[in-house]
Amino acid sequence: MRFGLFGGAARALGQSGDSLSYGRFIDYVVEAEQLGFESIFLVEHHFTGGGQVSASLNLLSYLAGRTTHMRLGTAVTVMPWHHPLLLAEQAATVDLVSNGRLDFGVGRGYRANEFHGFNIDPGEAQARYEEALELVMKSWTSRERFSHDGRFWSFRDVIVEPFPVQAPPPIWVAAGSEGSVRQAAKAGQRLLLDQFGSVELTGQRIGWYRDEQAKAGVTPERGQIALTRGLLLVDDAAKVDDEIRKRHGAIAALAATAQIPGRPAPEKPTGPFAVDTSDEATRQATVIGTPDDCIRRLKALEAAGVDYVLFNDPWGGIERLRFFAREVMPAFRPKAAAA
Amino acid sequence: MRFGLFGGAARALGQSGDSLSYGRFIDYVVEAEQLGFESIFLVEHHFTGGGQVSASLNLLSYLAGRTTHMRLGTAVTVMPWHHPLLLAEQAATVDLVSNGRLDFGVGRGYRANEFHGFNIDPGEAQARYEEALELVMKSWTSRERFSHDGRFWSFRDVIVEPFPVQAPPPIWVAAGSEGSVRQAAKAGQRLLLDQFGSVELTGQRIGWYRDEQAKAGVTPERGQIALTRGLLLVDDAAKVDDEIRKRHGAIAALAATAQIPGRPAPEKPTGPFAVDTSDEATRQATVIGTPDDCIRRLKALEAAGVDYVLFNDPWGGIERLRFFAREVMPAFRPKAAAA
Repeated sequence: MRFGLFGGAARALGQSGDSLSYGRFIDYVVEAEQLGFESIFLVEHHFTGGGQVSASLNLLSYLAGRTTHMRLGTAVTVMPWHHPLLLAEQAATVDLVSNGRLDFGVGRGYRANEFHGFNIDPGEAQARYEEALELVMKSWTSRERFSHDGRFWSFRDVIVEPFPVQAPPPIWVAAGSEGSVRQAAKAGQRLLLDQFGSVELTGQRIGWYRDEQAKAGVTPERGQIALTRGLLLVDDAAKVDDEIRKRHGAIAALAATAQIPGRPAPEKPTGPFAVDTSDEATRQATVIGTPDDCIRRLKALEAAGVDYVLFNDPWGGIERLRFFAREVMPAFRPKAAAA
Repeated sequence: MRFGLFGGAARALGQSGDSLSYGRFIDYVVEAEQLGFESIFLVEHHFTGGGQVSASLNLLSYLAGRTTHMRLGTAVTVMPWHHPLLLAEQAATVDLVSNGRLDFGVGRGYRANEFHGFNIDPGEAQARYEEALELVMKSWTSRERFSHDGRFWSFRDVIVEPFPVQAPPPIWVAAGSEGSVRQAAKAGQRLLLDQFGSVELTGQRIGWYRDEQAKAGVTPERGQIALTRGLLLVDDAAKVDDEIRKRHGAIAALAATAQIPGRPAPEKPTGPFAVDTSDEATRQATVIGTPDDCIRRLKALEAAGVDYVLFNDPWGGIERLRFFAREVMPAFRPKAAAA
């Protein structure tokens, strides 16, 4: 089982949106690498007013200079916001300065306030995503000049530089429905599974992906599917209820941030925020409890086919990661080869 | 007198456009900081086919993690290519992770192949530059949400994050004519002077800038005007002719790179490449010769009002910088205060 991190600076550590929170977040990531966390997948958000990470590829470029081996991911880069050739250059530069450590997560966008702010019609998101992703892939792989005359972009006689080190960096997509999971496997894309699905649903999704690989004669590999989970590890079972309350508060705050400024929030959260926030559902979809509880929950995920977990923890800080590394991680170390 | 660097990876070290040249360039910058060079101003170019630096702000983000005090500049970020809000976010992130070391150089673009590739009408460059720069400044300074309905961009109810550390980072502009130099001083912008102007012309330009500051009652500060010079320091005067030949070759190669692919080059170079490449003009506009020669040329610049020189040297590598630091730099150390 591999472990990584999912999140970002500012609110991700439960702080106000000042610049210092970036410094604390950076220290957190640098120490996490030393503790054995194998990746950081950074979110990208805009116009929240809370100092969230917006320029994910710049923060990853910086982290490339402060870390040595952890994978540097986006989860996700929202394609409709970006100029596709500049994006290809920026991501290739991250891959280059990190010597091939970029994991490029891509998405269509879902936050109403971002479509509103960028003044982009949500109805165009899919078409913009497709055109931009095609252009990024072509930019990374074409060694000849090319021209493009698309719906949103046109370019003439371009060759995009620099080239990435990986040929090309892996593309990660967030998917959950059977169709989208199978489509990701068919396209050779890696899979980001959400932090709300139960163990059973997660196992089903992994099954769809592996089934599609089997049909195509592709050998499954470890680390192709990453599952995000809230990490609510505590040293005393009596603290669990408080952790659940904090998590519900964090989800509600995220949902509010995604609203168009000045408009009333919908009565019920929609889209990715329409999650079951009952205590029981939260327990089922998080890595929660004492070290023994967390080991048990992770073993259940392992039995369902999970080999890579990304932890989201907006308030526990480095102390929780140290506790996890000391008390939980050893239970998932590869067994030493028999003498 | 302060010294910094001007240039980029790949061809900047006279290498082919492979990824390794980034690694060598990074080592070069990191050691240059230790030698006493106070800044790196990175170029931004696109579609050259030679692996030049395109995503300057990503390379600067990385360098923020590998350096401790050198200023991190762009020379220049070409505003018409960029999405202004994403650019504001990216540049603010560089400023944030470097703890306030960003020097933000901006320009309109001049290379025919880049306007062609991005499919942007050169006739729109000025208007795009103005609209984008205004949006970047507003993004960095507005603590309230704002909307924008411009010729090229429209946004609704945005607040751009993160905020930079500097309030705001200094804007640097390349200028040479009397009108544009005076305009930069009036706007409170810093001034990048080119690498081809003679000592006399350079002194004149500095005079215009300082005069405009005096009229406005602004106290002139050191380091507000940076002059770029080719560094052709040699250990033997007999090597000077060869250095001049190499420099002419490098300028011709740059001019060729800027051409639209497949079209015949103009008989005479145009725009910034229309420079006097006679041996004498090159001697007058470079820091060339033995250490004693270079000290003499720099003292002449100092007498003309120059207090900050950025060196461009596409082939000398770190060896030349070490030689400069050992043999030339000490002549420009501030005198110790009298006891």
